[in-house]
Amino acid sequence: MKILALDSSGLVASVAVLEEDNCIAEYTINYKKTHSQTLLPMLDEVSRMIELDLNTIDAIAVAAGPGSFTGLRIGSATAKGLGQALGKPLIGIPTVDGLAYNLYGTDKLVCPLMDARRNQTYTGLYEFVKKDDKYELVVLKEQCAVALDEMIDCINKMGREVIFLGDGVPVFKTQLEEKVKVVFSYAPASCNRQRAAAVGSLAFSYAKKGRMETAAEHNPDYLRLSQAERERKEEMERGTGN
Amino acid sequence: MKILALDSSGLVASVAVLEEDNCIAEYTINYKKTHSQTLLPMLDEVSRMIELDLNTIDAIAVAAGPGSFTGLRIGSATAKGLGQALGKPLIGIPTVDGLAYNLYGTDKLVCPLMDARRNQTYTGLYEFVKKDDKYELVVLKEQCAVALDEMIDCINKMGREVIFLGDGVPVFKTQLEEKVKVVFSYAPASCNRQRAAAVGSLAFSYAKKGRMETAAEHNPDYLRLSQAERERKEEMERGTGN
Repeated sequence: MKILALDSSGLVASVAVLEEDNCIAEYTINYKKTHSQTLLPMLDEVSRMIELDLNTIDAIAVAAGPGSFTGLRIGSATAKGLGQALGKPLIGIPTVDGLAYNLYGTDKLVCPLMDARRNQTYTGLYEFVKKDDKYELVVLKEQCAVALDEMIDCINKMGREVIFLGDGVPVFKTQLEEKVKVVFSYAPASCNRQRAAAVGSLAFSYAKKGRMETAAEHNPDYLRLSQAERERKEEMERGTGN
Repeated sequence: MKILALDSSGLVASVAVLEEDNCIAEYTINYKKTHSQTLLPMLDEVSRMIELDLNTIDAIAVAAGPGSFTGLRIGSATAKGLGQALGKPLIGIPTVDGLAYNLYGTDKLVCPLMDARRNQTYTGLYEFVKKDDKYELVVLKEQCAVALDEMIDCINKMGREVIFLGDGVPVFKTQLEEKVKVVFSYAPASCNRQRAAAVGSLAFSYAKKGRMETAAEHNPDYLRLSQAERERKEEMERGTGN
């Protein structure tokens, strides 16, 4: 089975092509350009380099949110467009799960922290459990948009060592160092941000469980309302409520 | 500090640019093209995408062997050429250490296995130990070229759970499953081959310890004689001995 994987949920744009235990190509950029300037050219570049016929892809995996609204829309639109044109299924991977998969094989709790602005973080809690000859990612606390303090409380109550990663780490570092009471550490540059190869690796286990959808069915999971939707809702509540 | 990292020690060609806790770009290809066709074009592509002025690089990290002789020569020649032209130091990272760094933060033993042909493997044994707010890679058995059985004996004697990775895994799988007596598992596609980001991440700790060299000083560490050298040596021994 061959999977094309995309992640543009955060600042990172990442494209990978995987075949079971083999990552044939991965290209990741964490730079100030917008994903509309990077994602498709990166896919083009990779396809040319590995002489990829997109028709040989069996499924398209995409980091399906939460994350930057624009980033998620570009990732999902690209995946849906490709899925529709090629007649291939999509596999939506929760963004925070994909991030957690970066720390494959650790015995510590894994806590990705994405900066969700408005004093919130997109986060979740994970561990790896051995199953046959691989480790499986197990979700202990499903991805959510919460205040950092709420997640720190949860971690302190669990009392287990934790590794933090994600673009929220530099943003929340001072708070973490003040408030986290368990032993903790940070992931290094090689595995502290979104990677399409992690999304693709996870997608193989989703595919085995039949967790696929059609291009038409797929929608990103924003976890929160967008600013425009929020303002409209507030306006309507003001209009009807008063 | 900004590091350009290269790994062409195996089938994989990989280029990354990192700045301390941030991987700005990584591009990895595991495809049948030769590294002379891929490595420099990949560096060009990445540089263009992140608008990289090579003069802003502080050091060039390179997977310095063991590995494919041709691959190592292409990687080292590229690093030496860039280092010489830019007047920047090189950081040679033992290939097997770089591979092991893929499994950052695991509590299991890490055993990379590269297919070294002639019934040997390039391998080593590693663990991660917490130091301040990061984990450090600790070398338990330095990288070496040995028969697989020798490494399996060593692992069985240590009696600790182990994770295998590297291009030797598919080659040696049957033997591993017959002979390894401890609990073991395999790394998935997202982290089972060389990655320049891992080489670059490790290079920061080398740089802090002053483990750098000039472009002129750098040489890859083949760990074994090449076929041509071996044959010449045998011929000379025959010539003088008999």
